[in-house]
Amino acid sequence: MEYRSRESKKGTNVVWHNHKITKAQRSALKKQRPCILWFTGLSGSGKSTIANAVEGRLYEMGRHTYLLDGDNIRHGLNRELGFSDEDRVENIRRIGEVSKLFVDSGTIVLSAFISPFKSDRMKVRELVEEGEFIEIFVDVPLEVCEARDPKGLYKKARRGEIGDFTGISSPYEPPENPEIRLPAHEQSIEESVEQIVDYLRERGYLDGK
Amino acid sequence: MEYRSRESKKGTNVVWHNHKITKAQRSALKKQRPCILWFTGLSGSGKSTIANAVEGRLYEMGRHTYLLDGDNIRHGLNRELGFSDEDRVENIRRIGEVSKLFVDSGTIVLSAFISPFKSDRMKVRELVEEGEFIEIFVDVPLEVCEARDPKGLYKKARRGEIGDFTGISSPYEPPENPEIRLPAHEQSIEESVEQIVDYLRERGYLDGK
Repeated sequence: MEYRSRESKKGTNVVWHNHKITKAQRSALKKQRPCILWFTGLSGSGKSTIANAVEGRLYEMGRHTYLLDGDNIRHGLNRELGFSDEDRVENIRRIGEVSKLFVDSGTIVLSAFISPFKSDRMKVRELVEEGEFIEIFVDVPLEVCEARDPKGLYKKARRGEIGDFTGISSPYEPPENPEIRLPAHEQSIEESVEQIVDYLRERGYLDGK
Repeated sequence: MEYRSRESKKGTNVVWHNHKITKAQRSALKKQRPCILWFTGLSGSGKSTIANAVEGRLYEMGRHTYLLDGDNIRHGLNRELGFSDEDRVENIRRIGEVSKLFVDSGTIVLSAFISPFKSDRMKVRELVEEGEFIEIFVDVPLEVCEARDPKGLYKKARRGEIGDFTGISSPYEPPENPEIRLPAHEQSIEESVEQIVDYLRERGYLDGK
């Protein structure tokens, strides 16, 4: 689709070609195939650290990315949502819809949320086209995450000071067929980054440059 | 800020520099200064048509843009919201938060919604940094919009078939000091596009290429 406004003359009474710029055009400008890198895993598994490292690597490669995480979502768009089952569902629904907008803009979007429920992740997958949703299971056992406990949250949850805590008082439903599984406690962050970048490279997401 | 993962060796036990990629870095990659072009005006004033034309022109110039409008918001992120005063406020709040995320990603985001309430537009302005919110008042009188009535909505509203219709049964609060005012019924779409692109060019939003 060609955008034709260039051919119209200022002030003359030409027909305006009201074409919308498409996802394909925005992706072509960015020279990449947009997708959602959807990290899921327990608190303390390393989702956010790995997602940031992947964004850093892709940035070095001149790729157009955006990372959605608690910092920019929980204090903004989803500020009124809590951690009840109902609010968790709405939280992930909105993150899914925003991710879809970023994909539509041609961006490789990284999403780093526990997202414990299989059905919610499936709904996000169904929002976008085939191949645009890449589920990355940060597969670190509860014992390891609890031993790490970087924010002291597991301790609080065990003491009953936090309700609905995933893995303790609220379920985590692991993905059955994630596109990528990261045994992040058994490998370096670098290795996890390589695993993801290799996946993208091999499947043509980074073609066009 | 330099991203350092390049210097670390795979498998070695280096300290991981967990730097987040910043708005400044993403903007530098896109070679532009991100902002929100916030179109406001009555139904039928031409917000969406002009916003699409501006996006088309910016695309031709190699700029990274994204347009938020009823098509991609009302059927997605805000699907459960109606047109009551309360829902309108929440509608604009979420659009503002999403716009902020796009600005953070380095994108020039165009938003084309009636956004009738001054206080809501002010809240969006306050979400982002000085100079990142550009209010564009598509200033077409009610009589002209009603005569155009492209979707037959004014007729329905006059017959009482649509409640809370802006300009008829719900107020429109015009901006007092918009960055750009477009008397869109007295000039061509091309002229409105030029007015906006000139504004961006003169104030350095398009520097860097």
